[in-house]
Amino acid sequence: MTSKKRSATGISSGTLPVIAIDRRATLPLHRQLYEGFRAAILSGNLGPGHQVPSSRMLAMELGISRFPVTDAYAQLLAEGYFESRAGSGTFVSSSLSMQRNSTKKNVFNSTSARQLSKRSLLIPQYENLPWRYGWGAFGVHQPAFDEFPFEAWSRLVARHSRRHGPQVIHHTNPLGSERFRAAICSYLRISRAVQCEPDQIMIVSGSQQALEITARVLLDTGDAVWIEEPAYQLTRSVLLGAGCRLKPIPVDGDGIDVAAGIRRCPNARAAFVTPSHQYPLGSTMSASRRLQLLNWAEIAGAWIIEDDYDSEYRYEVMPISSLQGLDSSARVIYIGTFSKVLFASLRIGYIVIPADLVDRYISVRMAMDIFPPYLYQEVLTDFMQCGHFTRHIRKMRALYKERRTALVNSIHAAFGGTIELHGVEAGMHVAATLPSGFSDIQIATKAAQRQLWLWPLSRCYANEPSRQGFILGYGNTCEEQIFHAVHQLRDLLVAASH
Amino acid sequence: MTSKKRSATGISSGTLPVIAIDRRATLPLHRQLYEGFRAAILSGNLGPGHQVPSSRMLAMELGISRFPVTDAYAQLLAEGYFESRAGSGTFVSSSLSMQRNSTKKNVFNSTSARQLSKRSLLIPQYENLPWRYGWGAFGVHQPAFDEFPFEAWSRLVARHSRRHGPQVIHHTNPLGSERFRAAICSYLRISRAVQCEPDQIMIVSGSQQALEITARVLLDTGDAVWIEEPAYQLTRSVLLGAGCRLKPIPVDGDGIDVAAGIRRCPNARAAFVTPSHQYPLGSTMSASRRLQLLNWAEIAGAWIIEDDYDSEYRYEVMPISSLQGLDSSARVIYIGTFSKVLFASLRIGYIVIPADLVDRYISVRMAMDIFPPYLYQEVLTDFMQCGHFTRHIRKMRALYKERRTALVNSIHAAFGGTIELHGVEAGMHVAATLPSGFSDIQIATKAAQRQLWLWPLSRCYANEPSRQGFILGYGNTCEEQIFHAVHQLRDLLVAASH
Repeated sequence: MTSKKRSATGISSGTLPVIAIDRRATLPLHRQLYEGFRAAILSGNLGPGHQVPSSRMLAMELGISRFPVTDAYAQLLAEGYFESRAGSGTFVSSSLSMQRNSTKKNVFNSTSARQLSKRSLLIPQYENLPWRYGWGAFGVHQPAFDEFPFEAWSRLVARHSRRHGPQVIHHTNPLGSERFRAAICSYLRISRAVQCEPDQIMIVSGSQQALEITARVLLDTGDAVWIEEPAYQLTRSVLLGAGCRLKPIPVDGDGIDVAAGIRRCPNARAAFVTPSHQYPLGSTMSASRRLQLLNWAEIAGAWIIEDDYDSEYRYEVMPISSLQGLDSSARVIYIGTFSKVLFASLRIGYIVIPADLVDRYISVRMAMDIFPPYLYQEVLTDFMQCGHFTRHIRKMRALYKERRTALVNSIHAAFGGTIELHGVEAGMHVAATLPSGFSDIQIATKAAQRQLWLWPLSRCYANEPSRQGFILGYGNTCEEQIFHAVHQLRDLLVAASH
Repeated sequence: MTSKKRSATGISSGTLPVIAIDRRATLPLHRQLYEGFRAAILSGNLGPGHQVPSSRMLAMELGISRFPVTDAYAQLLAEGYFESRAGSGTFVSSSLSMQRNSTKKNVFNSTSARQLSKRSLLIPQYENLPWRYGWGAFGVHQPAFDEFPFEAWSRLVARHSRRHGPQVIHHTNPLGSERFRAAICSYLRISRAVQCEPDQIMIVSGSQQALEITARVLLDTGDAVWIEEPAYQLTRSVLLGAGCRLKPIPVDGDGIDVAAGIRRCPNARAAFVTPSHQYPLGSTMSASRRLQLLNWAEIAGAWIIEDDYDSEYRYEVMPISSLQGLDSSARVIYIGTFSKVLFASLRIGYIVIPADLVDRYISVRMAMDIFPPYLYQEVLTDFMQCGHFTRHIRKMRALYKERRTALVNSIHAAFGGTIELHGVEAGMHVAATLPSGFSDIQIATKAAQRQLWLWPLSRCYANEPSRQGFILGYGNTCEEQIFHAVHQLRDLLVAASH
């Protein structure tokens, strides 16, 4: 462009602000022209109603071919920056009603109000805590990934990713794959004594989504809900996000204290429990507590949410049958996950839904994320049907039992009775409680600097924590690491007690 | 067991109800014993406090080895059905406080109240409508899956499923993979003129989850929200589920009528729009409407949710730049998906979040499903970096343009001006409106019986539909099918007009 004259608003001769073009630039000419015009319009330098030169004229002025100019004009017309008037030519759209300030940046201006939802504020702010993402000694929720049969697994993945019929691409059942649900159903009936049919099973991305959908279907703002005290933190987040009133009920060696729950809040709408292996303290809910809980739910018209997150691993006896299997009034929602048995980044879990609630679950799920991704569902179905799944569980049960025993022995040898261990019969973690006077958060923070990952027990309490201690994951910690890590822990405690 | 005598509650001689064992059954003996005892206890036949014979005695009585008996007893002790009293032996737990009725089945008893949440009732019931799941002619949201480069794709999938470092297994970033977000960021800046940094991008399972998380972060019960009229049905479901008051604002050839919105509800908290290719009518929001909308949002302190679901496909000019790219006050939340360009069962989409809202999005996401699955994120990153992605888009753009033209020509040839087409410049569908007197739902129901999938336009309206017609997807309908399907459609309309 040769003319440097700025034009005023209103129909004029077609003079233009400078639009620099550069033949050596990587951006094609039509794009340079388009962006030059757009910037001039948005900055107010080229006002509404201003006539632009004909494409022939502009091409001549710029000494370029006419094609890039007509391309740029077509784009500006399509997007509504330009308008053409029959017989008169092309103009900046007269309906462009404002000059936007080009010096303003696309950032939050802190003086103006940025109103977010009140309900999102109910969810505790996510904190990137030092002990959260460690990989290695005592990391919680970490399976022995180097023992995973990746060869068999990746063969199945490769096979299914090559299959590309519509059934794969156009897989849109909000409950998930039928084959996969049938496989899970059969596994749950045999191994967990769950009463279910495939049509009651919904595939979800893990326990967390299972809790979230369940809370949406069952609970409203203001509803009172029993949770275990202590409990898994993200269970609290789901319920707080739903606007529920949390009623933390103490747990002891027999699981949640149902009598205390009834005294404290007889009319709760639901109880969230981990009966097979209480998280984090590790107790197993006794038969009498199970029956008490089911009886209460039936009388109160309450729901029981059974999170059976790592029930596959029990070392002295067979896995404990599910609470759901004892339920005679369809008040238990059963939740399971593949995160602990396989690995968490799969993002696959499931819900066993009372038959009369399935439709409501589907409606809620449709609004949330429609349906689960297909590939791993197909892979896991084969993995289960070919026997890899139970073989892997059996192998891991033996391995984790060894690691569990090594951890218990090391702790006893290093601390005598100073540190108490809880929940050693099952799962992939133990809870270690400290004598009074120690701060688990302080020690865990220091430990993380030494690559030792201790999850502080006090963070699992809704009320004032009655115990300080650590959740020690041993799934991904081999025996040699365990001995070393227990020594590190002793050094940290010695340092902390001075 | 030989004794058939039923025992009363209370300490007794150790007589037992019949527990049948069968040496030829596939269930192992210890399991048969365990289940026999458990059933007897749960049915009330074996009361709390009842003494059971010693394992030695029972083994002798049954004429079997002692091992299965001690195994069964250990399990029953661990689960709390039995208790041992030092020096006196083994008893049914005295704390088992009730006899549960064994004849009751685990089903909903319709006379008792089953209270679900009020908020889940706000979401419309999911209907398995006849036209919903068809695969083939005019199916909406279906890409040309047989053109997808499955060979390159499955090579990448296989490669990544063999890699099994902790970075893969222990992938827990709630925003998603860093590499993937960097690739998306660069794509969006270049192709969509989106203003973003990788740390503003959150990977989600698709547009629906993006809408859901966004509604949770931004909106509360009772908030007024502009939606386009007509619009995508599941957008309404999200907002209804959030308890919002929907304000349907008409769309015309320039997109949503901002002036009408301001007249109707100037203080709405948010506007949900599809500026690149309005769903379902297909118009492109003009530049002046875009600026009007942004101005309103800034003045009203409202949020704009830009759902850019199929912006890659535009046939006459380049893809239209995003609304977000024009935003100078960080009020636009930009949503994109891979469902249309690749395929829906991937379940991958993304949100570009204003920088100051990222923390809140993370907190909400943690409570919902923690983090997205890893595999396809890694695969897609490579797919994009190796150029497959843009190559596929280019190829599909040419193919869909041909199909679009074939569809437009066939409709014109078959119907003249009787059927009006909308939104033919872009995307993978057109909207075809019918003359008055036809019911789109009736015709779509009949069409589905002939394997012709017509999505009724009237279902996209929140209020009384002002138009009857169909959304005709052509992404997965080849030219030959198009000619045939248009003839089928003509037959249906002829039959319906009699």
